[in-house]
Amino acid sequence: MPDFLLHPTLAEDCIVLGNLENNLLLLINNSLVPWFILVPKTRHSVTELYDLSMPDQQQVLNGINTLSKFIKARFNPDKLNIGAIGNVVPQLHIHVIGRYQHDACWPKPVWGNLARTAYSNERITEIRTWLTVDLGEKLLSH
Amino acid sequence: MPDFLLHPTLAEDCIVLGNLENNLLLLINNSLVPWFILVPKTRHSVTELYDLSMPDQQQVLNGINTLSKFIKARFNPDKLNIGAIGNVVPQLHIHVIGRYQHDACWPKPVWGNLARTAYSNERITEIRTWLTVDLGEKLLSH
Repeated sequence: MPDFLLHPTLAEDCIVLGNLENNLLLLINNSLVPWFILVPKTRHSVTELYDLSMPDQQQVLNGINTLSKFIKARFNPDKLNIGAIGNVVPQLHIHVIGRYQHDACWPKPVWGNLARTAYSNERITEIRTWLTVDLGEKLLSH
Repeated sequence: MPDFLLHPTLAEDCIVLGNLENNLLLLINNSLVPWFILVPKTRHSVTELYDLSMPDQQQVLNGINTLSKFIKARFNPDKLNIGAIGNVVPQLHIHVIGRYQHDACWPKPVWGNLARTAYSNERITEIRTWLTVDLGEKLLSH
């Protein structure tokens, strides 16, 4: 999609991990919870899920499923939180987050309630390796 | 689905409006924002979206689309917020909420940040009428 451009706030807050279906896969640089984001690679002006074509929505749904299973398998959370909010960053993006009953803001949602602690480089490398092993060809370099 | 049972917290907080695809359609009894909920009518033990079969997930996605367009058309919000959180009520349920830049907790998410003001009976009747007019056969009585 030649005119796809990641919103600067997402670019600043996140690590780009690759592509999952037609979505850019991001990791919020906050090691307190495993917090991933899918950004459908479509026109920059799309803000709502229902603005996407059904095939693009299906790719979002497939991405959510793949990512949910990855988070469950590798991070063993008590609950997944999935959300398309976009009140602050208008570019359509979908959060898929692993939550723990002992995490810093349980049972509140993470948005606006969580401090931030950056990942170590070693931990990011480990997560990238897990993705490559578990997702294989599903994960394309961007 | 004979063993479907609505979680008592959802039953207490919400007005049952009907069925949309294979989901029970609820309205949170809070007139501050238009806040709807879809509850897939499946086994009570399902807590995560990816626990659903793909056809059931597709029905959730269809329900989100129909509900999003209804909320946009009738309530004219600035943004939709969609979420499957479930940290407090484990039964899988999907929020579809219309948000306004002037609402009581913008840009924060509604969860944990919004006071509650019950709807009048007249307003509930109006919303039911809109649903019947706009959704027609898609909306089945429960």
